[in-house]
Amino acid sequence: MGHKFLDFLNVTRYIEIAANSMTHWRNSMFNLTYAFAEGNKDLRDILGGKGANLSEMTNLGLPVPQGFVVSTVACRAYLKAHELTDDLVTEIRSRVSDLETVTGKTFGHGADPLLVSVRSGAKFSMPGMMDTILNLGLNDVTVQRVAQRTENLAFAYGSYRRLIQMFGNVVFEIDIKDFNEASHKVENVRGYGSANFTRQDWLLVIEQYKQVFQAQAGQEFPQDVYDQLFIAVEAVFKSWDNDRAKVYRQLHNIPDDLGTAVNIQQMVFGNYSKDSGTGVMFTRNPATGAPGLFGEYLSQAQGEDIVSGARTPDPIANLEASKPQVYQQLKTIAEKLEKHYQDMQDVEFTVEDNHLYMLQTRNGKRTPNAAVNIAYDLYEEKLISAQEMISRIEPGMIEQLLHPSFLASDLAKHDSIASGLPASPGAATGEVIFTAQGAKVAAEKGHHVVLLRNETSPEDIVGMTVSEAVVTSRGGMTSHAAVVARGMGTCCVVGCQDLQVDEAGAVAHYAGGVLKEGDIISVDGTNGKIYLGTIKTTAGSVSDKLNKILAVCDKYARLQVFGNGETVKDIREAIVKGARGIGLARTEHMFFQPDRLKAMRQLILAENDADITSTLAYIKGEQKGDFVAMFETLLDKPCTIRLLDPPLHEFLPTKEADLQQLAQSIHKDYNWVAAKAAALREVNPMLGLRGVRLAVTLPQIYQMQVEAIIEAAILVSEAHQVNIIPEIMIPLIGVTPELEMAKKLCVDAAEGIFEKTGKRLDYKVGTMIEMPRACLIADELAQDADFFSFGTNDLTQLTFGYSRDDAHKFLPTYLEDHLLPNDPFQVLDTKGVGALMNMAATKGKAANPKLKVGVCGEVGGNAESIEFINTLPVDYVSCSPFRVPQARLICAQTQLRQEAEKNGVEYKASSVTA
Amino acid sequence: MGHKFLDFLNVTRYIEIAANSMTHWRNSMFNLTYAFAEGNKDLRDILGGKGANLSEMTNLGLPVPQGFVVSTVACRAYLKAHELTDDLVTEIRSRVSDLETVTGKTFGHGADPLLVSVRSGAKFSMPGMMDTILNLGLNDVTVQRVAQRTENLAFAYGSYRRLIQMFGNVVFEIDIKDFNEASHKVENVRGYGSANFTRQDWLLVIEQYKQVFQAQAGQEFPQDVYDQLFIAVEAVFKSWDNDRAKVYRQLHNIPDDLGTAVNIQQMVFGNYSKDSGTGVMFTRNPATGAPGLFGEYLSQAQGEDIVSGARTPDPIANLEASKPQVYQQLKTIAEKLEKHYQDMQDVEFTVEDNHLYMLQTRNGKRTPNAAVNIAYDLYEEKLISAQEMISRIEPGMIEQLLHPSFLASDLAKHDSIASGLPASPGAATGEVIFTAQGAKVAAEKGHHVVLLRNETSPEDIVGMTVSEAVVTSRGGMTSHAAVVARGMGTCCVVGCQDLQVDEAGAVAHYAGGVLKEGDIISVDGTNGKIYLGTIKTTAGSVSDKLNKILAVCDKYARLQVFGNGETVKDIREAIVKGARGIGLARTEHMFFQPDRLKAMRQLILAENDADITSTLAYIKGEQKGDFVAMFETLLDKPCTIRLLDPPLHEFLPTKEADLQQLAQSIHKDYNWVAAKAAALREVNPMLGLRGVRLAVTLPQIYQMQVEAIIEAAILVSEAHQVNIIPEIMIPLIGVTPELEMAKKLCVDAAEGIFEKTGKRLDYKVGTMIEMPRACLIADELAQDADFFSFGTNDLTQLTFGYSRDDAHKFLPTYLEDHLLPNDPFQVLDTKGVGALMNMAATKGKAANPKLKVGVCGEVGGNAESIEFINTLPVDYVSCSPFRVPQARLICAQTQLRQEAEKNGVEYKASSVTA
Repeated sequence: MGHKFLDFLNVTRYIEIAANSMTHWRNSMFNLTYAFAEGNKDLRDILGGKGANLSEMTNLGLPVPQGFVVSTVACRAYLKAHELTDDLVTEIRSRVSDLETVTGKTFGHGADPLLVSVRSGAKFSMPGMMDTILNLGLNDVTVQRVAQRTENLAFAYGSYRRLIQMFGNVVFEIDIKDFNEASHKVENVRGYGSANFTRQDWLLVIEQYKQVFQAQAGQEFPQDVYDQLFIAVEAVFKSWDNDRAKVYRQLHNIPDDLGTAVNIQQMVFGNYSKDSGTGVMFTRNPATGAPGLFGEYLSQAQGEDIVSGARTPDPIANLEASKPQVYQQLKTIAEKLEKHYQDMQDVEFTVEDNHLYMLQTRNGKRTPNAAVNIAYDLYEEKLISAQEMISRIEPGMIEQLLHPSFLASDLAKHDSIASGLPASPGAATGEVIFTAQGAKVAAEKGHHVVLLRNETSPEDIVGMTVSEAVVTSRGGMTSHAAVVARGMGTCCVVGCQDLQVDEAGAVAHYAGGVLKEGDIISVDGTNGKIYLGTIKTTAGSVSDKLNKILAVCDKYARLQVFGNGETVKDIREAIVKGARGIGLARTEHMFFQPDRLKAMRQLILAENDADITSTLAYIKGEQKGDFVAMFETLLDKPCTIRLLDPPLHEFLPTKEADLQQLAQSIHKDYNWVAAKAAALREVNPMLGLRGVRLAVTLPQIYQMQVEAIIEAAILVSEAHQVNIIPEIMIPLIGVTPELEMAKKLCVDAAEGIFEKTGKRLDYKVGTMIEMPRACLIADELAQDADFFSFGTNDLTQLTFGYSRDDAHKFLPTYLEDHLLPNDPFQVLDTKGVGALMNMAATKGKAANPKLKVGVCGEVGGNAESIEFINTLPVDYVSCSPFRVPQARLICAQTQLRQEAEKNGVEYKASSVTA
Repeated sequence: MGHKFLDFLNVTRYIEIAANSMTHWRNSMFNLTYAFAEGNKDLRDILGGKGANLSEMTNLGLPVPQGFVVSTVACRAYLKAHELTDDLVTEIRSRVSDLETVTGKTFGHGADPLLVSVRSGAKFSMPGMMDTILNLGLNDVTVQRVAQRTENLAFAYGSYRRLIQMFGNVVFEIDIKDFNEASHKVENVRGYGSANFTRQDWLLVIEQYKQVFQAQAGQEFPQDVYDQLFIAVEAVFKSWDNDRAKVYRQLHNIPDDLGTAVNIQQMVFGNYSKDSGTGVMFTRNPATGAPGLFGEYLSQAQGEDIVSGARTPDPIANLEASKPQVYQQLKTIAEKLEKHYQDMQDVEFTVEDNHLYMLQTRNGKRTPNAAVNIAYDLYEEKLISAQEMISRIEPGMIEQLLHPSFLASDLAKHDSIASGLPASPGAATGEVIFTAQGAKVAAEKGHHVVLLRNETSPEDIVGMTVSEAVVTSRGGMTSHAAVVARGMGTCCVVGCQDLQVDEAGAVAHYAGGVLKEGDIISVDGTNGKIYLGTIKTTAGSVSDKLNKILAVCDKYARLQVFGNGETVKDIREAIVKGARGIGLARTEHMFFQPDRLKAMRQLILAENDADITSTLAYIKGEQKGDFVAMFETLLDKPCTIRLLDPPLHEFLPTKEADLQQLAQSIHKDYNWVAAKAAALREVNPMLGLRGVRLAVTLPQIYQMQVEAIIEAAILVSEAHQVNIIPEIMIPLIGVTPELEMAKKLCVDAAEGIFEKTGKRLDYKVGTMIEMPRACLIADELAQDADFFSFGTNDLTQLTFGYSRDDAHKFLPTYLEDHLLPNDPFQVLDTKGVGALMNMAATKGKAANPKLKVGVCGEVGGNAESIEFINTLPVDYVSCSPFRVPQARLICAQTQLRQEAEKNGVEYKASSVTA
């Protein structure tokens, strides 16, 4: 080999030979085999990712050891028939013969026998899941020829030994250790290592290997090289259905019926000489996105040696000094590949006696941070368009960038002790507690808690709500723990089988240790890993380049993105994250500070109008202060303020002791207070006296709120010389006269202030659309509304008849049994809730073309939901500030995708995060 | 007069004269005046009821004293202008002149002066609400002429005296007592009664009357007879807007802008001689409907004397002996009127010197019982068609007939002490209690309670639920008490201002007495009256004739009527009342017997599969027994059985003591039981783990129920040789896979039984449609359903977002403020809930043409709701057995009305109950 390496001129000839096969290829949409020169990167379905890219590189003129691909078509046929068809056998023989012609070598014969690798390669990368066999073509005879040609006994017999071992392991599941022992036995007997083995020693080793093989496989190691090849191909086909591969596919949503392709390629050897080696390389830094080659090179080794981690490779940069020619060649190829693929590449290569061979290229996996930086850099380098840049960012990346994560420098000091399914992202540290009640007690003492259980049930909610993170040893991505934690935004890892949890004993065992109650662990909900001790976290943030990308997104999106929030902190965060304004400010959140809560309680328990009036005056002062702060933060950015929504009894305590304290503090009789509180309590508070119904029974509250809003708006408008147009939103409207009444109440209150102050400003009055009935009469409501805002949470509750507070009792089962495709509170239900929204938005805009329509609620930040919302006559979505950046991206991607679909163009979704 | 009575030949001439006026009439749609001969019964809008019927009788050739009508058009003009127009004055003068010609008498002049009455007469009868003046045309001169002509001093001057008195009272509101005193003064001075008055005595009386008049009216009694007439007409016009009339109209939903007509008619005198008199008469018995004249006759009296009750009249039957000719004439006229009006008539007449004059006829008010009997008799007598008969029964009549009512014989012994608004029908007796808590305590001791309050609030519910009747002194038909009591079906009277209730003092004052706590009263919720003491009640029932009418109804109705029920008693009642079968049998009601409740609790608290299996086996045995009983009652009548619906925690106690007892009885730890119960409790149980969601989390229950149903059906089918096709209904379906799963569960369970028994029968599986989402995906659901049944209660709860358990906190205010037209749980909301139903029924039938669609829930028995449901592709309604007869009537009436509307024909609704 050393002196007759693959001649690149021969490639041209090979392509010619292959062209003859093209006739066959043209005759059938689904060919069984493809020479690399016949394929291209767009044939991933049939050639798998590896085969498609080897083909593409071949056609780019890059130095690729030649070979051919047995297509997924053949695999699928095999998986049905359970045997290789005669056609396939004939084709493979013919392809090998072509390869012999190109390489000038003979498979199983001759002075320079052809050796090949057999590798799996599915459409979607499934790293390590399926099988590879190297050095096929070696047998008792050809190994001698190779030894003679290369004058390298260790190389030739070492390669043969590796073939027997890999073949035995892959095809007959023989433990690799059993083979290694055979080697060690000879070393022990001889008293020296394999580097010094004589031909006799090697023959003994091979004999030992063959004995291990025969003992466990029940047959001799095949000396017929075609037998080797066909058995290997079958083994790769079968590996599609091994358990590891099945689990991986399930986890990554890869369909089970794709099958894998098989790549049969001439061997090149990084372990051939001192001037040989193997490397993996990214064309940019996959962690940061920084330009420049990034990777590792291992001298005198084959690719598998890097993976095994037995030796530590050098940084790729070292090659610049040690092998400048190879390094320059790599740089040139990297540039060519990036330009061609328009993306950062993850490349595998081998150097055989100073000759560089490309063995693999693919879009490189990268961290979210790198993905953002690379996409923006490529856009700046004019390698990709703005639309393409937008398509390169996954919504999940932004979520990861914004969630707290472990500080990389600190994380490096910790080893993961266990790993499970990443059910709800984030990173958190706390003390292990095994019961919900215990978690509650610890949290009440101010401790940070990680709730660790085999699985959670509805009784555990009390503990989950106070925990920094939730970990379970059982259950999947739709288990109770997973669903509830995601709903609460709590970091969560489920199905963490590495932990044996003994709840009663309050201990958990893992390989190498025990967790006891109170032990500190750190949980990464983004990758599912558990660590011992405290790891510093870093708060997520929007980087400069991400900001620039999102600004581009805003240009392409149809839906505007607003934030939900009422505190100055939240409002500021929403604006910083790019919200156009505030789409939902919930005024009830402002009442829960101690002083105000007391006033609110006095109001609810007032016995006469004088009490009501004086209490409202106090609350109004406070509210006005809130609104001033809001408007000062927002200035002329729009703000939709929702009037009081929850049932009044939510402001009252429920426990006897608390009620007693309340009675004392407001100088009332306990029994009276208790009776009043009991009378306010409701069987189904979600369907009770709340929202606009409060305005019907106690109109003074809304009046007070509107006055406070208008007064605050006038004040800030004048002080800052900005044009503030407050948007007042009435919740829970179900019948038209309610809205008429509430609107009149608002208008009267506002006019009252205008008269009193002699000043005037524009304002809007609109309504939440959250009752199914509101959707059905939206045309009527639109007459009286400046805007609609869909309250998808309540609308979902009512459309399904699911209480958000109680659905955790059955939703997990529904998801596990596939009765529901998703948690409808996380992903908008398009058939039911969505149909009502479509009806309402369409009717509303038809009746009042000036009507502004939005969606507030968490689905406003969810990709699948926005996908649907973007098809409705809706103008904006409003979500929590945290989700605003993600929503901006999704709105742009959705619009671009739907435009592309309308134009019959395929829209590429990116999936390259590590 | 005596010798020149109205000559009937003259009527013909009068008609001729009137014909001249017809030219004028033809020129204008709205004439100011109409001679009787110009009018007819269909001109009630313009002539009022009395005028229209006087016209009709005139044209029928009946003996009617002639006259004319000043129309409502003139009244409406007057009420705007506040004065009589010149046109009207001219027309009235001309009409009087025509009348002079017909009668041969002169108004205010001549030997035989014309005397007339002036009576109000609106479109809708408003008895006693407006004013009448008799004997107009008498003055100091004409009274002498009448005295001379009639040779009856007392008659002439008595009539004059009555004129001054009525005129003074009606026009100037002078107290009648003041006039009476003047008469008594003269009697006292003379020492003898008015029967013996001389001419001088009479002149003195008149003088005194005129003085009273002048003193209080501030002007002399008008001697110009036209002045008398015009002032009287004005007074009647004005009386339309007096306070009594306004209140009456509000109460009876009569529009305020109709105005009244004025009837000016030649006087006839029942007080003229011994052969004179006056009578009121029904052409059939208005209490029972029995054929034959029914009424009273008062000799030597005018109509007003009967009304005043000063003398006791004779039964009309006495006339047969005393005045056979008049009696025969009355009989003939009655027959003629019934034939002409096709209904029982309420008639007023006067006999003047053995001559009969008809003064009024109208459709007679009658009891519900009479209404039913008369309608059926008229149909049998072929006076009216089947459709007409159906239109004659009001749904409310049937409700009244079926509600318990006070036994007439016992009722007669009691005087009403107070009266209010009849808010919820029924009749009940109990001891007065003034607080909800007190009512609860008394009821727990086994007392029958009437809760008496100024008004009720949500805190009073606990007391209302245990009371036989609820009475409030304040509030209207939509007050809290009214709405809640109607919802509960509890007898209720509200706004009973005759009672001054002192809740704190636990007493209530009424005119003439005091009610103390514990006093027994009887309450009639059907007419709003309150009585002292116990009155025996009679249970309502469907009479033979009503049954026959309803059988005719079933032929004309499009919607079939089913009953809701699960006990043998209820099912039997439904069938007796004419239900086609059972549309909703709620299986959960079967679990509340002590033994079964205990088993159910054991099931809910089971700790392992063995416990579940053994408990279910017990429950299955019981359930099977239930179903056998049901099928044996129904035989081949269809029965829709709904599988378990409510949340499981409804079966568990909530109080600590009860939980402790439960723990003991099932040998479990109290804390464990309490924790389990707490975990099952829900924030919004209406939206929680119930219905089909139970089948998802605990499928064994539905499986057990289906097995019990199928086994029972097989058993009864064989024993009675009938074809039973059980219909199994799944509640709370919201997503398609739920129904697929539940249906499979049913099919598997049924097939299991078929296999085990070797027997087989047909059965159906369908679903409740009660989630808004179910309506939106009805096309999908219809693929898997044999039938849909709208659960309007839950559908209304979810569409509006109203909890039935809590809505009483705001629904009354909503109704009072006209934010809602009706309680949507009583009357179907067509715009919201109805729109969803329309969508679901239409989509469902399109997707599955064999789909049977029904409505169960209380709106299924409500007229307005059926009116709408009949327009949907719905096949049947199902309501409580009590409401089945009413629903059968309403379904027929609705169908007939809608057919008539489609054909552009007016459909007459009847309203004749007393």
